[in-house]
Amino acid sequence: MPRITFMPSGRAVEAGEGTDLLDAARRAGEDLDSPCGGNGTCGRCLVRVSSGGVRTDASAVIVPENAAAGLVPACRSYVTDTECVIEIPESSRAASVRGVNVSAGDDIEPVVPDGELVRTIRCTVPSSLGKDALSDLGRFRKTLAAGDPDAEADCPITVVRALAGALRADGGRVSADITGVFGRDRLVRLRPGHSMDDGFGIAVDLGTTTVAVALTAARSGKVLSIKSAYNEQIPMGLDVISRINYAGRPGGLEALRQASLGTINRLIRAAALDARIDTGGITSAVISGNTVMTHLVLGLDPEHIRLAPYTPTVLDVPVCPARAIGIDVAPEAPVIFSPCVGSYVGGDITAGVLCTDLASDSEDISLFIDVGTNGEIVIGNRDFLVTCACSAGPAFEGGGIDCGMRAAPGAINTVKVDPANGRPAFSVIGGGEPRGICGSGMIDLVAELFLSGWLDAAGKMDRDRTVECIRTEGRRAFYTLAGGAPLRVSEIDIENIMRAKAAIYAASALMLENIGISYEDISRIYIAGGFGKTLDIENAVAIGLLPDVPRERFAYIGNASLAGSYRLLVSAKNRELQRDIARRMTYMDPGADPRYMDHYTAALFLPHTDSGLFPSVSRRVVRPSG
Amino acid sequence: MPRITFMPSGRAVEAGEGTDLLDAARRAGEDLDSPCGGNGTCGRCLVRVSSGGVRTDASAVIVPENAAAGLVPACRSYVTDTECVIEIPESSRAASVRGVNVSAGDDIEPVVPDGELVRTIRCTVPSSLGKDALSDLGRFRKTLAAGDPDAEADCPITVVRALAGALRADGGRVSADITGVFGRDRLVRLRPGHSMDDGFGIAVDLGTTTVAVALTAARSGKVLSIKSAYNEQIPMGLDVISRINYAGRPGGLEALRQASLGTINRLIRAAALDARIDTGGITSAVISGNTVMTHLVLGLDPEHIRLAPYTPTVLDVPVCPARAIGIDVAPEAPVIFSPCVGSYVGGDITAGVLCTDLASDSEDISLFIDVGTNGEIVIGNRDFLVTCACSAGPAFEGGGIDCGMRAAPGAINTVKVDPANGRPAFSVIGGGEPRGICGSGMIDLVAELFLSGWLDAAGKMDRDRTVECIRTEGRRAFYTLAGGAPLRVSEIDIENIMRAKAAIYAASALMLENIGISYEDISRIYIAGGFGKTLDIENAVAIGLLPDVPRERFAYIGNASLAGSYRLLVSAKNRELQRDIARRMTYMDPGADPRYMDHYTAALFLPHTDSGLFPSVSRRVVRPSG
Repeated sequence: MPRITFMPSGRAVEAGEGTDLLDAARRAGEDLDSPCGGNGTCGRCLVRVSSGGVRTDASAVIVPENAAAGLVPACRSYVTDTECVIEIPESSRAASVRGVNVSAGDDIEPVVPDGELVRTIRCTVPSSLGKDALSDLGRFRKTLAAGDPDAEADCPITVVRALAGALRADGGRVSADITGVFGRDRLVRLRPGHSMDDGFGIAVDLGTTTVAVALTAARSGKVLSIKSAYNEQIPMGLDVISRINYAGRPGGLEALRQASLGTINRLIRAAALDARIDTGGITSAVISGNTVMTHLVLGLDPEHIRLAPYTPTVLDVPVCPARAIGIDVAPEAPVIFSPCVGSYVGGDITAGVLCTDLASDSEDISLFIDVGTNGEIVIGNRDFLVTCACSAGPAFEGGGIDCGMRAAPGAINTVKVDPANGRPAFSVIGGGEPRGICGSGMIDLVAELFLSGWLDAAGKMDRDRTVECIRTEGRRAFYTLAGGAPLRVSEIDIENIMRAKAAIYAASALMLENIGISYEDISRIYIAGGFGKTLDIENAVAIGLLPDVPRERFAYIGNASLAGSYRLLVSAKNRELQRDIARRMTYMDPGADPRYMDHYTAALFLPHTDSGLFPSVSRRVVRPSG
Repeated sequence: MPRITFMPSGRAVEAGEGTDLLDAARRAGEDLDSPCGGNGTCGRCLVRVSSGGVRTDASAVIVPENAAAGLVPACRSYVTDTECVIEIPESSRAASVRGVNVSAGDDIEPVVPDGELVRTIRCTVPSSLGKDALSDLGRFRKTLAAGDPDAEADCPITVVRALAGALRADGGRVSADITGVFGRDRLVRLRPGHSMDDGFGIAVDLGTTTVAVALTAARSGKVLSIKSAYNEQIPMGLDVISRINYAGRPGGLEALRQASLGTINRLIRAAALDARIDTGGITSAVISGNTVMTHLVLGLDPEHIRLAPYTPTVLDVPVCPARAIGIDVAPEAPVIFSPCVGSYVGGDITAGVLCTDLASDSEDISLFIDVGTNGEIVIGNRDFLVTCACSAGPAFEGGGIDCGMRAAPGAINTVKVDPANGRPAFSVIGGGEPRGICGSGMIDLVAELFLSGWLDAAGKMDRDRTVECIRTEGRRAFYTLAGGAPLRVSEIDIENIMRAKAAIYAASALMLENIGISYEDISRIYIAGGFGKTLDIENAVAIGLLPDVPRERFAYIGNASLAGSYRLLVSAKNRELQRDIARRMTYMDPGADPRYMDHYTAALFLPHTDSGLFPSVSRRVVRPSG
């Protein structure tokens, strides 16, 4: 088989004729970026063929300047029968997604635990119980069931391996962690002695762009540590459709599965280290992710989510032991997935709704907006629940923005713009030099530039007035936030924010229209997402992300998927409530409705083409004096 | 860490100070023999220290001739802080145990299947069932349960991975293999289309010396292939006590687990190849092994079986999916272990008894003798079942006999000795040149030599008459069976056979004494074991292995553990019967009774010190004329 060598690393793989260079690069361990998932549409995975024969698809989209520089898209270039050397330019590499960020915005409101997933039974197993239970396992199961053979717990062999040692370490005293979620009682873990703790649980928000975990103490429900990081799947596609594309490539599904597991496990280890516990002490887990993320982490082909009739393989995932999935906690720990309700409304939403009045027995109508790479919206009360999803892109999580980052230390999270000279003033999470700008910072920046007249309703910067912080290169204008390590925002970045907010506004508007109500009928609007705590509602209204309604109706609830997962972990009532919510939700597909495109196009302005919808914003806009 | 290099292979490992050379050799992949399990007692794992410092335990037993040759026992010699080079002499290597022998004696009588472990349901899943079952899994489970939510089967995620593809391959027609043995229905395997076959099952006899598997068709119960081989654990100890020793060494338990899994999986692959099926098509398995073998294949520390109060970790093993154990069949296939009844009466015996009248509703008393490395005995009828075990050693399976082998092609299986000149005449399984001698051949040889006066009652060869086939070297005499590649049997080999038969005879005698009956009261004597079909009952009586009772009472039933496992695989009635048998069996420990030693010592002669017990034998013995 021909040998493919990548430069400058010198890493090499053997690859059969016809293998594409994106695959070969992944197998060689190269971090080639592929935002469209290897679909040949984004033009980011460009490489240079230094030597050897490579065949590039004649229909591949290659911009002339790339062709002139000898660059070809790796995902549409194929190994022939000869050895070759491929150079990967720095600009084609995926940004590092490996760090663990200490989250600044993901506080979780503790709830009083009821009905933990795993209970700890402390018992003393006698050294002999007569003929019928001569074995360690026989005596243990009998003791545990207190004589009732029907109550005997299933004992997986992986746990039984610890039995002989545990029984003999402390005179027969053992602590057994038992779960009932598999339909029958099952032993999850066994420890010698009468342990003080009841084990730990992990709540996971598995987002397309960001993954967050919260480590909790099972008995008290106390949150011990929260960690978050970018999803390591990002180089394999920026949004769920790109990930589905990538999953269809040879080895792609397994690479995606490993990447999300890698992210989750890295975060679990970081949280455990933080709380000074062993990951093996975590005996339960709840994972909430959208439908595609749920499929990928389980190794389920998501292809049919994208193809008509858009049928996912699972919505309700059966409870699995951690080892069957590959989560790095106690191997037999039950892992519960939040139920999904449709191809594009997943477990992150059914978890998030738990943190709102939508989960209460109220007549008042609430609106829940989760702003992530997918934007999901739920409207309802105790009588009805309607949901829909739209593709917003990762802009609000810092994705697709050149200097974007999530709301973590080093991120600019609030911005003020001096109307006179356009100069920025900003705050940085954790203080110090800024490393990037997060969602709330971008919302502030776009709103401030727009309100002070430095940006027009179409998102174009003012090129007429010469100021230091706005510069033009070619046809594009840039706004410089900070000098040291240059931090600047382009009109393309602003366009991404506008597209994201337009998608969400349009989806909400369409839903209201379909239900036949207006914003006046909504008592409460919950905003969830990874913006950071400092989301300025006024500015979110100013750019047209949120409707222009009385501000006291808004509530920013942060990472609701993580907070909801935490509730599921510690509360049986919440688990029951969520099953009920998932059953009651009606899924509406905005993509199937031609009016969605009209709403979207109308919303692609600041704040909207119909400025009458945003009276308070219109009053605030300053027209440039010069 | 010091580097240890083994010669002549040149394989090297790094090993911490204090690591013993037997461990280091295993980790280097060297096949050093260790019949006592690294206990420092057999003196077989001898190595030569070519260079570097090695510390040998001062208390280690080293015979002067080994010391003179520079040989030290590896299991009692330890790495110091320097690199060293260790030479492994050819004589210290374990004999190869890797071949797959086509068994010559392991026919299995087919039974009519009733209640298979896994049933195949052929159904057609509609492409949509409305809102409540939008997902593939939802529709599939609903179809399978025919509308009854309580009947919905558990679906492991490993099987769900095949669901989307299977549903779309043949218009929704799928074949689902379901088992109820986990307490609730569970999906084992999923295939597209309405498959013709109901899957396959594998019955495993996991013996200390020999492992055998029988591959069966689930629906018809037909036996498709039988394969057997030596247990790859043999180099890590010849008998169960040595294996327990070895399991206590660092990494020893895992090495033993892998060795037995390796043997089983090799045989499964060979049987599947033979029957032209895929191993993934095997959806159920039954394993019958003695208590120690059962612990080792499950990775359970067998230490407490040997230590007072002799408590095994498991007797009744919970049903496990194959992947949890590491058996190379369908990952979710249920694996059932035959229940053990005591530390030294295991699942091989409860399986074997199924093939005898002991499992019937008869008043007649039967005796069951399983002659393996452990000898196990069961006496009883419908009213009582008593069992015991004794350590016979592997002699009847060809172990511990220099040219011994199991009853496989190339083995001498019957022997006649010419009384006049002591010359042998023999038959070879499969014809051709003999490669060794199996149990039935050894019984014939010892009996014929004894009856014709070439061997005395103490097992010593006649040195007074000069014949070609008996030669003396030092203090030992040898009997040459064949010339080409010299095949000879020593007095030590004969002693091993005599010890084995004495142990079994003594255990039977003690049991009869305890129950208060004699051989006259026994209607039927079943003999199970790996001798081969050609076991000559007359000769087995002549050496004192079997009692001198009317010959029509004997029945040789071959590998009863394998045949019993097969019955468990295909018959629910047999599974129920076996549970009842295991519950009813009373375990008797001959080792705890001082009279056992008396019986044993008395039986260490041919046929016995009390020749009155063997009247028919006494009449046949020819006294040498010269």
